[in-house]
Amino acid sequence: MREVAILGVGLNKKWGELWDKSLRQIFVEAALAALDDAGVDKLDSMYIGSMSSGLFVGQEHISSLLADYLGHTPIPATRIETACASGGAAVRLGFIEVASGMSDVVLVGGVEKMTDVTGSEATYALGTAADQEYEGYHGLTFPGLYALIARAHMEKYGTTREQLALVAVKNHRHGAMNPVAQFPFEITVEGVLNSVLVADPLRILDCSPITDGAAAAILCPVEMARSLGKPVVKIIGSGQATDSIALAQRKDITWLEATYQAAKQAYQMADKTPADIDVLEVHDCFTIAEICVLEALGMVDKGEGGRATEAGWTSLEGKMPVNPSGGLKAKGHPVGATGVAQIVEIVRQLRGEAGQRQVKGARLGLTQNMGGTGGSSVVHILARED
Amino acid sequence: MREVAILGVGLNKKWGELWDKSLRQIFVEAALAALDDAGVDKLDSMYIGSMSSGLFVGQEHISSLLADYLGHTPIPATRIETACASGGAAVRLGFIEVASGMSDVVLVGGVEKMTDVTGSEATYALGTAADQEYEGYHGLTFPGLYALIARAHMEKYGTTREQLALVAVKNHRHGAMNPVAQFPFEITVEGVLNSVLVADPLRILDCSPITDGAAAAILCPVEMARSLGKPVVKIIGSGQATDSIALAQRKDITWLEATYQAAKQAYQMADKTPADIDVLEVHDCFTIAEICVLEALGMVDKGEGGRATEAGWTSLEGKMPVNPSGGLKAKGHPVGATGVAQIVEIVRQLRGEAGQRQVKGARLGLTQNMGGTGGSSVVHILARED
Repeated sequence: MREVAILGVGLNKKWGELWDKSLRQIFVEAALAALDDAGVDKLDSMYIGSMSSGLFVGQEHISSLLADYLGHTPIPATRIETACASGGAAVRLGFIEVASGMSDVVLVGGVEKMTDVTGSEATYALGTAADQEYEGYHGLTFPGLYALIARAHMEKYGTTREQLALVAVKNHRHGAMNPVAQFPFEITVEGVLNSVLVADPLRILDCSPITDGAAAAILCPVEMARSLGKPVVKIIGSGQATDSIALAQRKDITWLEATYQAAKQAYQMADKTPADIDVLEVHDCFTIAEICVLEALGMVDKGEGGRATEAGWTSLEGKMPVNPSGGLKAKGHPVGATGVAQIVEIVRQLRGEAGQRQVKGARLGLTQNMGGTGGSSVVHILARED
Repeated sequence: MREVAILGVGLNKKWGELWDKSLRQIFVEAALAALDDAGVDKLDSMYIGSMSSGLFVGQEHISSLLADYLGHTPIPATRIETACASGGAAVRLGFIEVASGMSDVVLVGGVEKMTDVTGSEATYALGTAADQEYEGYHGLTFPGLYALIARAHMEKYGTTREQLALVAVKNHRHGAMNPVAQFPFEITVEGVLNSVLVADPLRILDCSPITDGAAAAILCPVEMARSLGKPVVKIIGSGQATDSIALAQRKDITWLEATYQAAKQAYQMADKTPADIDVLEVHDCFTIAEICVLEALGMVDKGEGGRATEAGWTSLEGKMPVNPSGGLKAKGHPVGATGVAQIVEIVRQLRGEAGQRQVKGARLGLTQNMGGTGGSSVVHILARED
């Protein structure tokens, strides 16, 4: 297998409620930014992560639609779906295709247009990432499922309500420095604790928002990237794994087995350990998720995610900066785009192009993207070459 | 890239209106049949083609769900969507993964559970494969779009109403010999011409049905397949391409450019020409589609698909047997499963296991799967090794 580099990255200009733009428009905006950053205009194929364009905008078959609107037919284009891990899975497939030698230049993108439906329609669409027959049928929504995880984590490990809030406060502090972010402003622990209750113990400021957004990255063989004159960022590890999508079928709902397995594969391929990682973008769809993810990735011991957050380890200046982009919480969470946007941020961090939110001296980064309550997870490890 | 073989194939027992079975049940039935045929019980990863599990059964994230119900978590599992070409695209991704050396044993499957919704809901869901903003918005449905293609083909090339009917008659004659088929019985030209008008000139017996069904195949490196004792069937060519999904954006709506491009890639990789192919499974979602596909594949000259059908070239005893399984028309069309089921049939044909509907001496087969009105297409060429 060939070594794979990321030649260019891009997001659409601003994430949020983009009522004046359609799915195809925001995708093309992000894809053109990535092509521009990469300095190429020829693609061999495309993978697009999108969780539910069918339920959100009544449009399937977006792979061809977007290849066409980007002006790149007849190249192969395929849509990838693993719920909110769709973007990460699209990156992985592009990685495999370039590594295999089948293609040289592959665009991996993600897009979701979530605000064209009502709140209850969006809640229903997101709920299709959970087991409809065993969870949805009984009225469980995503905040409800993560609330069960949060409560179990608090009971088992003594994680506090304030520690949950600190995840959101930290990610908003980072997001305030990200011009693309949907909510680029700071919040306080008191603000979180007094915000509207969604599903006890989770409040509205524990939850990532509904977002319109798109992200793209251009992958190519490493030799090709070396000619570009920018720092070369390589994908040195890729892992993907599954777990039951229903919480009831897991031994321990505070433990994200799919994330653990995906990370194990990625660390092994990269020949790295958690201690080697300089910067992380992880899936903080709810505050409790970031805490559980840190544990499953081996960044902290089991049960220690809350205390590590409280100790400041995960902030920009901490020993393991997590979600410098603002994360899903502040940057926004267009579900199918999120996994690709994590790659965009890590590439910028490793190139030293992250401006105010730059993690100093970052040379090795990790992305972790997951679907549903962790029924699927994709982990990538990126390294700056020189 | 390594050579890739198909180690085992399977379908769920019977395609049709399976109101007593769920999506996960029919998928597991097909997957277990394929694993049994392959004689393996360990998988490295899975790709599942499904066009719209979100709109048909309110369940996204089926990749992990199905890996779980098949008892194969934590392996990576990814759902693939390119409308009705989802199954073919899943096969292609499994092919790339095995060819790359990343994995050895990969399950590629497809599933669609289409009969749990009303007819108008199914029509809406299928319509999401067309351009919602430029076609759906104006009331066009799939039969309407293919009716436009049929009318144009009749005008341009003198294709007759009877020639269209003969596609359905031939595929039902084949399907009558396929125990899995949803409609395993013969029909007549008069029957087609007198059936209910759906979208002029297409009548109900020109249209493939709404179907519940699943299909699976197990891919592995060729060396591994050689140890099994069955004839080795290899994937020697793979092509995928895109076109605009809206008919209005095409120069000539009778020409399937994505199919032409995908076939060109596949012929090139396989180093074969149309004249080499012994048996084909192609995407006859409507009778006119099979005619246009034969032309785009280069099996007949432009405009000659109808006359070739009338001359009997495409029947089981003809010079280029097409859809020995009964095709989408008689076997059924569970959209995401169709592309994988085509592979299942060709493997059986090349192994000489197709019973009554066996194409004598078949050693080289081709599958062609497409999404929407041909906005995406996937072509594979399979060869028997010995």
